[in-house]
Order: sequence, then C-alpha cells, then structure tokens
Amino acid sequence: MSRALERVSFLGFDVFGTVVDWRTSVARIAEPFLARYAVQVDPLQFASDWRGCYQPSMETIRSGQREYVTLDVLNLENLVTVLAAYGADPDRIPAQELDELTRAWERLDPWPDSVEGLSRLKRRFAIGALSNGHIAGMLNLARYAGLPWDVIGGAELSRSYKPQAATYQRTIAAVGRLPQETAMVAAHNDDLLAARENGMRTVFVCRPTEYGSGQTKDLAPARDWDIVVSSLTEAADALGC
Amino acid sequence: MSRALERVSFLGFDVFGTVVDWRTSVARIAEPFLARYAVQVDPLQFASDWRGCYQPSMETIRSGQREYVTLDVLNLENLVTVLAAYGADPDRIPAQELDELTRAWERLDPWPDSVEGLSRLKRRFAIGALSNGHIAGMLNLARYAGLPWDVIGGAELSRSYKPQAATYQRTIAAVGRLPQETAMVAAHNDDLLAARENGMRTVFVCRPTEYGSGQTKDLAPARDWDIVVSSLTEAADALGC
Repeated sequence: MSRALERVSFLGFDVFGTVVDWRTSVARIAEPFLARYAVQVDPLQFASDWRGCYQPSMETIRSGQREYVTLDVLNLENLVTVLAAYGADPDRIPAQELDELTRAWERLDPWPDSVEGLSRLKRRFAIGALSNGHIAGMLNLARYAGLPWDVIGGAELSRSYKPQAATYQRTIAAVGRLPQETAMVAAHNDDLLAARENGMRTVFVCRPTEYGSGQTKDLAPARDWDIVVSSLTEAADALGC
Repeated sequence: MSRALERVSFLGFDVFGTVVDWRTSVARIAEPFLARYAVQVDPLQFASDWRGCYQPSMETIRSGQREYVTLDVLNLENLVTVLAAYGADPDRIPAQELDELTRAWERLDPWPDSVEGLSRLKRRFAIGALSNGHIAGMLNLARYAGLPWDVIGGAELSRSYKPQAATYQRTIAAVGRLPQETAMVAAHNDDLLAARENGMRTVFVCRPTEYGSGQTKDLAPARDWDIVVSSLTEAADALGC
C-alpha cells in the first residue's frame, strides 16, 4: 500500500467526471427534449456545450463580480444560453421543462467502477463529495447513482467554487481533520493542484473519455500526484481497501 | 400508511436521544477516566450532569451573547465545568485526555432499532441528521454507529442551535425541499414544536429511558404529532417502508 496516504482518514471526491459520467447521461436525458423542441444538435455535443458554460459561469462568482449562487442556478442559466445559441427560443419553452432538464445533473450515471470503489474505500476512510455541486444536487445524485457518501462537503458550505482555497479549507474544517489527514480524489489536474496547495494529499483518477473520444485534457497526471489510478476500484486496491 | 407524510421526501432526525443512547454510552466511556482521576460520581449521573449543561451552554449562543461555536467546543467547556463541580481540578488533567473524553459524543451506541429503522426509511426517504451536533461529530458518530445518513444537516450549516428557526430552515433549503416536503423525527416535544412552526411534518419517537428510569420529560406526545411511534422500525412500519 502507498504510504503517502498513511495519515489520511478522509477522502474528498470531485464528482462530475471523476465519479459520474455527465456527458453520456446528460445526452441521454436531453435527447427527447431536444427532439420535442426541434433543437438541431447532437445530444452529446449539446451535453459538451452545456458543460462548456460551467467554468465561465463560476468564474463570475470566483472573481467577486457576483454573489454566490448554487450550481443549479448556474446550470439553468447556462441551459438558456446554449439553447439560444442553437437558435431555439427558450422563452417559448415552459419554465418547468427547463427546470426538469436542469435536474439531469442529479441523474448522472456512475462510471462502472464508482459504486464498488467508493464502497470499498468507505471501509477505511470517511468519504465525502467535495464538488462544486450544491448540497441538494449532490444528495439527489447520490440517491440516484448509489454513491455512499458519509458527508456532503464542497462549494455550498463555503459559498465558493473550486479551485478557490475556501472550498477545500471549509470542507477540511467541517470534517474535523487537518489538511494532511485528507486527500482529494479527482480526474482533473487543476483540482488536485489546488487541493495540494491547501495541504491535501492527492489521488488522480484517469478518466480519458469524460469528454468523449476526442478528449485532449487530463489524459495523464500533470504532476507527481501521490496516487495515480484508472478507476476507483484501482484506488481501493492501491489503498489496501 | 399514514397520509400526513404523503408529500414528504426528506426526513430530518434529531440524533442525541432519538437515534443514539447518549447516557449509557457516555457513562461507559467515562467510567475508566473517572476512576483514573478519582472523581467521586456514578458514571450515569456524570453523563446526565454533563448533558445537563447542554441547553444552558447553547442558550448563550441562541440569545446572541456569544458567537456560534460548534458543539464539541461547548461539550469540552461543559466537561471542565462538571469535573470542577465534583471537586476535581481539570487543570491537572492533560488537555488531550479532556479532548479524548469529549469525543465520547462521537461514540454513542444506537438504540437497538435505529440502524434497521434508518436503513428501511432510507429506501423511500432521503434521510439526514438535523441535530445540534457539528458536522465532524455527526460524521464520526455515523461511522461509529452505522447510521446511513444521506446528508448531514443541522446546526453547523446555519451557525444556530435548535429550536431556533434558522436551524430547520437552513437544512430544509440545503436539501432543496419545501418545508411541507420534509418531516422532523425526534424524541423531544419542543424540537417537534419548532419544526412544525417552520412548516415541517412531525414524527414523535417515544424514548422513555433516554434519561434513565426516572425520566419525567417527553414520556408522551404533547401535541397531535403526525406520527407517534416507539422506535424507528415502528416508524418504518407506519410509513410503509
């Protein structure tokens, strides 16, 4: 077993991309909606485009231009933006249907190894979501996907968005650990970089198809992360769980 | 099945007394400590006396005299107070031992029906701690006692203490429900009264030995609570789980 995580008793997980496959799930859920409103776009492209608004929309909050709002609020605004970009008129779509489609982010399928991996890791470590998702979204997603979190940490506790330091620090404090007693598990190098800057140990999970077959980012670890694996079951193996 | 909870999809639980038996657990854990420092008190009496400081210590925060601190901070202060009241000198006890004993509140045994009851209720409802305990304490207690929470709500989210309205309201908002879509499950009439005032449905769980055989409070429902049961498995029966 790797000794880098010897003192660690809490694992915080990035969720979108690391634990669940948002792209194919959003595409599947959106497909009938797109057909109903004759929106001319491939559902997988639609999922990527919607997700593409994610970082810029959080950036308005990180920069202080805008007060914190939860991720469902941003996702709904971003949905309206992408629909308009395809030439659809979001004002002609009932608000309830837009809300319903936004809840696609609470019905994302886990990667095939996620539930088993988390269940095994949970035997030895306290495990929690450390995501930019809001608490209700993480709760509903966990129930949908069977993610056995001990606790839901992340953005809403600190009213900040990763990679801001406050998001990591507030969750570390909430779970009552020292930074070095925690590790961040993520498929994204920038997330791990910020986690390490805040004293956490790091576990990189390679998810080379998060963005589909043409993915160019996060195909490999960009730093000497403490653990590098290809799945959460492999993480459990590496950590002796 | 009772229809009063038909629209409810989230159950918030009081924990100390309702889900776990703090009195006999604290007594058991404290016994060797009390013997080691020759503190002349029956361990069960000690547990009750320590718990007796609980409401007054939170009251300083509810009233605004003092800024919010987490329950472990209050429990440690109260431990020093009760030890001094028995004639012990807390300054002669290593701080680490006082901290360790304070963590007794994270190692409380569930009532015999709690784990099965929660597991059954979880099939139909999202379930969460809605306690005055802090997040880390609830997390560690859940792992010790096997409490399968979907989410940890309660005092720390709002930096307030039940029965303040903010504690209920913030958890209701965090789980993304309307008040009438939530229910409070508690062994304490005053907790349910405040929950009802904040729009929650109410489940009274009779725990007549929480304070031992001489208990005088909360032996029966003081109002027409929506559901009245004697255990969490009975609650699961009543709710068709």
